[in-house]
Parts: sequence; structure tokens; C-alpha cells
Amino acid sequence: MTTELRSWRPGPTLDAIMEFLDAVTDLPVEARVACFDNDGTLWCERPGYVQFDFLIDVLNGALRSDPSLAERAEFKAVLDEDTVKVGELGMARVAMALTGLCAGISPSDFTSRVRSFMSSAKHPTLGRLHLDCVYQPMLELIEALRSRDVTVMLVTGGGTEFVRAVSHELYGIPPECVVGTLVGYEFDRDSLGHPQLFRTGKISGQVNEGGAKVAAIQAQLGRRPVLAVGNSGGDREMLEWAADQDLPTLALLIDHDDADREFAYVGSAQSFAEPEPILDVAAREGWTVISMARDWSEIFVPPSPD
Amino acid sequence: MTTELRSWRPGPTLDAIMEFLDAVTDLPVEARVACFDNDGTLWCERPGYVQFDFLIDVLNGALRSDPSLAERAEFKAVLDEDTVKVGELGMARVAMALTGLCAGISPSDFTSRVRSFMSSAKHPTLGRLHLDCVYQPMLELIEALRSRDVTVMLVTGGGTEFVRAVSHELYGIPPECVVGTLVGYEFDRDSLGHPQLFRTGKISGQVNEGGAKVAAIQAQLGRRPVLAVGNSGGDREMLEWAADQDLPTLALLIDHDDADREFAYVGSAQSFAEPEPILDVAAREGWTVISMARDWSEIFVPPSPD
Repeated sequence: MTTELRSWRPGPTLDAIMEFLDAVTDLPVEARVACFDNDGTLWCERPGYVQFDFLIDVLNGALRSDPSLAERAEFKAVLDEDTVKVGELGMARVAMALTGLCAGISPSDFTSRVRSFMSSAKHPTLGRLHLDCVYQPMLELIEALRSRDVTVMLVTGGGTEFVRAVSHELYGIPPECVVGTLVGYEFDRDSLGHPQLFRTGKISGQVNEGGAKVAAIQAQLGRRPVLAVGNSGGDREMLEWAADQDLPTLALLIDHDDADREFAYVGSAQSFAEPEPILDVAAREGWTVISMARDWSEIFVPPSPD
Repeated sequence: MTTELRSWRPGPTLDAIMEFLDAVTDLPVEARVACFDNDGTLWCERPGYVQFDFLIDVLNGALRSDPSLAERAEFKAVLDEDTVKVGELGMARVAMALTGLCAGISPSDFTSRVRSFMSSAKHPTLGRLHLDCVYQPMLELIEALRSRDVTVMLVTGGGTEFVRAVSHELYGIPPECVVGTLVGYEFDRDSLGHPQLFRTGKISGQVNEGGAKVAAIQAQLGRRPVLAVGNSGGDREMLEWAADQDLPTLALLIDHDDADREFAYVGSAQSFAEPEPILDVAAREGWTVISMARDWSEIFVPPSPD
């Protein structure tokens, strides 16, 4: 067991996880479901979301063919790195405007674009690729779950298709097990009658945070998790949903308390207004809190070779 | 190969399927995706949809506690078996009214209700349970696909959760691989603070027919099929989407031409207006048409023991 979770230090957190891993095998296989948040849970979300860096890259590409885009308020704020202005406009509005830049392209073209960006995009301060900012202990936990026939699902506030483009490579999670904020699609035929599917500029349904995550887990996956892992107010309802059952369950909340090796910040999604601090909710609900500083001997996966 | 597909008679249809089964293993595993329609493709849809029988059962239950429901136009038409009136109101409106009867219940209660109904519900004329009205040759095809690491998905115009309640038992298809017409969900907490998820009375998004099926395959599953199987105008776009690729692909259309063993009818979904007869589309597009009368030596799975 300790070789399975070799980057986890001994202590109550590891004990709680090991206890759950033992108990989960008593459940029927179809009930063994784990839902993981992505940003700040499976990979680093600071100083900014990786997807936001991707969208800036898309914007820079679009500016080369249409420089007038720089005048649009949402894009100007981003290009000026004017965080006050971005805050005034609202992160959701800015993100939607950036997402709209990919309207009209096919799902496979979008995936290619994400993968092309990700193949070389670097974290601004950690000195490694974004692809290498995955938390090693989480990969070990996912592997331990899989070896017990637990279906591992990814439930993110980020764009479903953005995360799908890398979820198999990073975590071994197939596209149908990724639940996120969905863009709308439209079916059409081209002038020769060939079928086409293209992204619209609008999201379909809700931003996948809070209670919307629970609804989307049911709608898209049709199963209720017995393990949920998150790090912010946007994950609260998902953790409650997993934990509140007469079954072996586990709700895990990551506390980003390691300024030396990662970042130290209060775990509330930047885009999500959560009145009660999530660590207070965790204490009240009896969730297991992962201290990155204390519980993890390694933070990140080994970096890719140059 | 012939023992794998033992209910398929030799001929050009079986040849086309065997050729595809050989070719699909040349694809990377993640590209091996098959999408099957359900009603009329995996099980019998005549004289009426199984889900409709279930909803009538729900209505009869609701009437016991509230007899005044019988006066509502949609329900009255159904109870009178007034097909003209149902047609005037529109099948979609009637189906939505019936679906609304399950508003407010949890996903697990809904699943239990479906399973309870299905455990004893009989086909009106075939002398067997609805559960036994599954097409044996299709189960063999699904099994042949699985043994080649093809991910098998179910893409139905029916309610996602209705089909999920039986998809694993009938076809070995897990809930996350079922794409259908989705009901909306709402997250809430009860007076004690326990998280709750309940069905709304409305569908979320579109009825899953036609181009909506292609959009939903991308949104929910994130993969493009290389095999699509259907039987009606509502499956047309899905079959086009699978077939129109520079890869080994197969589009299969079932022709219900066996009045002796099943039903003989022109394959257009009752709820879907498709201007061009689907068999004409199939001929033009070069799809493989399955004649139930000629190509299948057995139609149904062996009946369950009494």
C-alpha cells in the first residue's frame, strides 16, 4: 500500500485514504465512482488557470489576422494585464469573450489547437511545462483507485473540451469521463453535403461550479460518486453529494499551504463566490483535508525530458 | 467469426460487418467508437415505445392519488387511447406532460421505478417481457465489437435516465455511455442541510434526434464514432457523421421488413419528421442495410425463464 501511495507521508490523511481504499472494494463495481476536480486538485492553478493562458494564445493568434480585436473591452483588459478591469468586467464575461474566438471551428480542430499549445506551454514561475504541473500524489491515488476497479471521473469548472484534449495523456481519463463547462455545438452540412459539427461561441447550460457540478455528474455520467476530491468553494456541493450516503465514502479537500513548493492561498476558486471559507465547511462536515506541505513528500510529477 | 455472429445469415450484410470488424483493429483504441440507436435498433419499438408504456404506468399510479389528472388534455388523450388526439397535441407535448409526472424525485428513485416496471412489463403482442425484446444479432455485434476494444455507446431519442436504468443489464453499456434526451436536474439541500438532487419537469437542451444526436455525442462523449447503427430518420445525421471520414467506417441501417417475426414498417421515427425516406438516403449514401427478414436467423434473445 505504501508503495502505491509513495508520495504520501504517513499520518491521518493517508490513514483515511487507505481506510477508504480498503472499504471501496466491498461495494459493487458499478458503485465505485470517484470524481476529481481539475484546477488546483490535479494540477496547479496558480498564478492563473492554464486554460486562460491557452485562450490568451488564441487571442494573440486572432490579433495577427484582425488587429482591431485589441480594442474590444474584454480583450484590451487582458492584453493590458489589467486585473482591476478584468475584475470589473467579470472573469466569466472575459472568459466567454475569449471562448467565442474559437466559434466556428470543429471539435477535432479545437483539440489539435489545445494539444499544440500544451506541447510547449510553460508555467510562468515553476520552470516546467504546464503538462508537468500535475500533482504526483494525485496520480498515485488515481492509480490506486483504478487498481480497485473504481471509475475515475474528472469534474471541472474549466471547458470540457479543453480538459479532454489532455485528460487521457495526463490522467488516463477518457473524454466521456470528463464533465466540465460545455460549449454549444451545431450540426450542419457543407455545400457538398458533408456533415459538419462546429463550436458555437456560447456555453450550453451552466458554468460547471457548485451545485451545477452535481447536476452535471448525474446528467452526463449517471452515477453518484463515493469519493470526491476538490480544493475550492466550487467543489463544495460535489463533496457533500459524495459524502452524504450510507456507504463507505470519502470527501477530500486540498489545502494549498505550501508556498515553498507550490503556492499558498485560501482555497476558493477565483471565479466562484462562496460565502463560507471552504476549510471551515470541511471542518464542520468532517472532510479529510490534505495539507500539501505536510502530507505530500513530492508535489509534482517528474519533469518531461527536454 | 461465424460463431461470434451466429444469428447473422451469410450474405453481403454480414460480409460488410466482417470487413469492418477486421479493419477497425487497425485504428488506435481511442478511435474505436460505435454508436447505437436504441428503439428499433437494439430492441423492438412497435407497436409503441417501451418508455411510453412506462410513462402510462406512472400516470396510472399518479391517478390513484390525484384522479383529477385524468382531465388534463394530454393525459385524457392517452387514457382514451385517442391516437388522433395525441397526434393533434403532438407526441412531444404528450411525452413532456408524462415526463413531468416524475418531477421532484431523485435520480435513484427514478431508476428504481423504471427497474420495477421493467421487471414485469410485457410486450402487448409478442408474448414476452419488454426486457426480452432485445435483438439477439445486435447483442452479438456488440460483443464482437467489445472483443476488439471498441467502446460501445448508446445514442437514443428516448430519455437518458430511462435507458440507463436498463442499459447495463441489457447491453452491458454503463450509464456514462448512454446519450439521450436529458431531463434537467436541480441541486438543493433539505431542512437538515443534506444535499439533494431532483428531476425537474423539463428537458435540458434538445430532444435527441437528428443533428442533435451528433452534437450530443460530441458534448457528452467527446468522440466521433466510426460505426453508427440506426433505423430511422432520426438517426440519419449520426450515420452520416460516422461514415464521412477517411478511416474504416460503417453505417448500418435496419430495415424492419419482417412482419412474421417482428413488425414491418418504414423506418422513420414516429416522432421525427424526415422528408426523404431513410432507405432512399441509405441507398444514395451507400450505407449497409440490414434486412431483418433476410439477414437475421434469430430476431430476439432467448426469453427469460418464468
